[in-house]
Amino acid sequence: MHQRTAGILSVGDELILGQTLDTNSRWLAQRLVDVGIMPLIHVTVPDTLEAQRDTLRSLASRVDVVVCSGGLGPTADDLTREALAGAMGTSLELDPVSLSQVEAWFVSRGRQMAPINRVQAMIPGGARAIPNLNGTAPGIHGAVGGCEVFCLPGPPREMMPMFESHVLPRLRPDPAAAITTRTIHTFGIGESDLAQRLGDLMNRDARPTVGTTASGGVVSIRIRLQGEAASEESARVLHECESRARAAAGVYAFGSGDETLASCIVRLLQETGSTVGTVESCTGGGLGAILTQVAGSSMVYAGGFTTYSNELKTRLAGVPESMFATGGPGAVSGACALALARGGVERLGVHHALAITGVAGPGGGSKEKPVGTVWISRASRDGTSDTRRFLFSGDRAFIRDLAAKSALAMLRLRLVGADAPLLREAERFTP
Amino acid sequence: MHQRTAGILSVGDELILGQTLDTNSRWLAQRLVDVGIMPLIHVTVPDTLEAQRDTLRSLASRVDVVVCSGGLGPTADDLTREALAGAMGTSLELDPVSLSQVEAWFVSRGRQMAPINRVQAMIPGGARAIPNLNGTAPGIHGAVGGCEVFCLPGPPREMMPMFESHVLPRLRPDPAAAITTRTIHTFGIGESDLAQRLGDLMNRDARPTVGTTASGGVVSIRIRLQGEAASEESARVLHECESRARAAAGVYAFGSGDETLASCIVRLLQETGSTVGTVESCTGGGLGAILTQVAGSSMVYAGGFTTYSNELKTRLAGVPESMFATGGPGAVSGACALALARGGVERLGVHHALAITGVAGPGGGSKEKPVGTVWISRASRDGTSDTRRFLFSGDRAFIRDLAAKSALAMLRLRLVGADAPLLREAERFTP
Repeated sequence: MHQRTAGILSVGDELILGQTLDTNSRWLAQRLVDVGIMPLIHVTVPDTLEAQRDTLRSLASRVDVVVCSGGLGPTADDLTREALAGAMGTSLELDPVSLSQVEAWFVSRGRQMAPINRVQAMIPGGARAIPNLNGTAPGIHGAVGGCEVFCLPGPPREMMPMFESHVLPRLRPDPAAAITTRTIHTFGIGESDLAQRLGDLMNRDARPTVGTTASGGVVSIRIRLQGEAASEESARVLHECESRARAAAGVYAFGSGDETLASCIVRLLQETGSTVGTVESCTGGGLGAILTQVAGSSMVYAGGFTTYSNELKTRLAGVPESMFATGGPGAVSGACALALARGGVERLGVHHALAITGVAGPGGGSKEKPVGTVWISRASRDGTSDTRRFLFSGDRAFIRDLAAKSALAMLRLRLVGADAPLLREAERFTP
Repeated sequence: MHQRTAGILSVGDELILGQTLDTNSRWLAQRLVDVGIMPLIHVTVPDTLEAQRDTLRSLASRVDVVVCSGGLGPTADDLTREALAGAMGTSLELDPVSLSQVEAWFVSRGRQMAPINRVQAMIPGGARAIPNLNGTAPGIHGAVGGCEVFCLPGPPREMMPMFESHVLPRLRPDPAAAITTRTIHTFGIGESDLAQRLGDLMNRDARPTVGTTASGGVVSIRIRLQGEAASEESARVLHECESRARAAAGVYAFGSGDETLASCIVRLLQETGSTVGTVESCTGGGLGAILTQVAGSSMVYAGGFTTYSNELKTRLAGVPESMFATGGPGAVSGACALALARGGVERLGVHHALAITGVAGPGGGSKEKPVGTVWISRASRDGTSDTRRFLFSGDRAFIRDLAAKSALAMLRLRLVGADAPLLREAERFTP
């Protein structure tokens, strides 16, 4: 069957100049994919009549549906109405129903409609207005050639409900044409290593298609089955591909869909009825912050020490002062990381403690301990421990983020009873 | 003079399907505007050779510069190299310098380059490779007709430094065409209140133009002088506008340009030779993490307690157990926040401690203490304290972020010797 396609158009000088981040396009893309319509292109243009009209025409010649957001306000730089009329080859006409709705919107707020708002009730001849329950700008549903065009207001809190209530039903969602996706997240393995493990699963003409994307150290495997009616066979193919991809990723696969390393840890701790505490130096609280992003983390996360100064490493976590003496291992060492983690287990009263101490930069590096050197230790109440040195590269924020995630990955290995080297791991410390 | 124009192209299935939010286009648009090049269009296309090649050609026929990000990875779905070669009408050639740089990147990390990464050293004949200091994918500088094309890697932490160090200098920034901007950051005042204070500075036809943007609770005043050659007169006009805007914002203005609330706090503490510690409940370490984003924060930030459980509030910060007894004030109270802050001053050995305890949601709210209720206390070694209840609205992440920033704003008021109500402040606690 025919795979319906879409173009997404965002309109606004503030977007084109980078003053405002466009989040509408992403949201619209997700919703269109959900109902089986494949976005082929996103375009952003300024508040210029020609640019808008020409882009509408060009998109309409290539896709089945165009969804446009922005440019429906009452001021002189809001030109989407005119642009659509131009692309449709008609002119603007006053829509009395829309006019009374705009007037009613003002009345309901005890305000008088300014004359300028009258233009918002103008729509191209042959098009239909879409009521706006959350603002003054009606949307417009028109057609350019054989392409359906929906123009929606720019503010997300007006655009999104209008899309849900009035655009989606008119798109005649076809579950059989839906694009089915599965995402498997991995951590601790590089993208090219993962690709080698995935092998021919990643062939461009494979069914389903498999790709990888990396973001903040997490490498995700994206599996996609497109334009096929849901069937037992397609479900089986998807499931089989997912299983093969998981097997290829091995212990590095930690979750799927919306799962994060932190949510995975919280789930595993809940399942095993155990708790975790944190002792942080160079991450300064970032590991605790990531863990507590997960709602409900208070069930398994007790708290922690941020021992940024050496004095607090001793006072709070009980690291012996000799650790920091000249000739001693120093704050950035396997011995110190392990002492911090063991101090955490004892003084925080938790089953597992994660400790991080390192050089996040940009200053503070040395030849022996360059910027990016981070020691991470996991110690547990049962007396076991795991202490590793990593050598991360990147800026301060990236090093800190990778350090926190690597600590979570080390705890995860313990909780799933596995051992494996993690990406950028350089050395292990044995007490 | 000729106004140079740009097209911005983002490449990736994950972008086109809405799985990932494109932030590169916005950043590139801002940087191009900064050097006087006007973006005319942003386009996003999938990892498809034809779509990429045709879009590169079409953009190149309309603008002076195209900046493309994404699609330079080592896997089969990374097609930007081929697409550019197609648009240029040449074929890919191995660039030995890039190959040795990619190999060196792996060697420096103690890893072996996978054969698959070899493709990253292929560039179109007639184009030049751009070295990547933060990853394996070299960028490419080519030309399609008279249009300069820069292809950069997708990950922002690789793309941004490459743009700054290698693309910007080749764009020959023209100071006379530049758009000169000044930014003043405020916190604790709403955008409409700030607009009222700014008054006629915000008139649409004023010179310079003044606008406000809000992001994560920080409301920034943006002053812009556009398309004027730098002169003594323009510098004076800009300076005068900046002074008036600062005066209008009053104590809420905390910095300008790249300054953040945290960097401002670190600077003020350094100037006064004092230290801060943190005691965090609902932010889970996020306040310490924000403070330690600032390089050099170890001079003034000693560390802290994350007292996520009530047991640790008592054990670590010395909050009396009676605080949590039935009928007592409870963990989310002014009394508890102040006790946490005072415990921090004493047990962390710092001049000032900031404590945060609240209901970040989505669960845990009650009629008396709805989600978004956060008590924040600043206590100092000199015996002074300041304890306020806030009522934030938004999701868990937003509430936690606003709580951490409001704590910094309270410390800032103490350090600059001022008192003022902060946005969303609802009550103060006096012991």
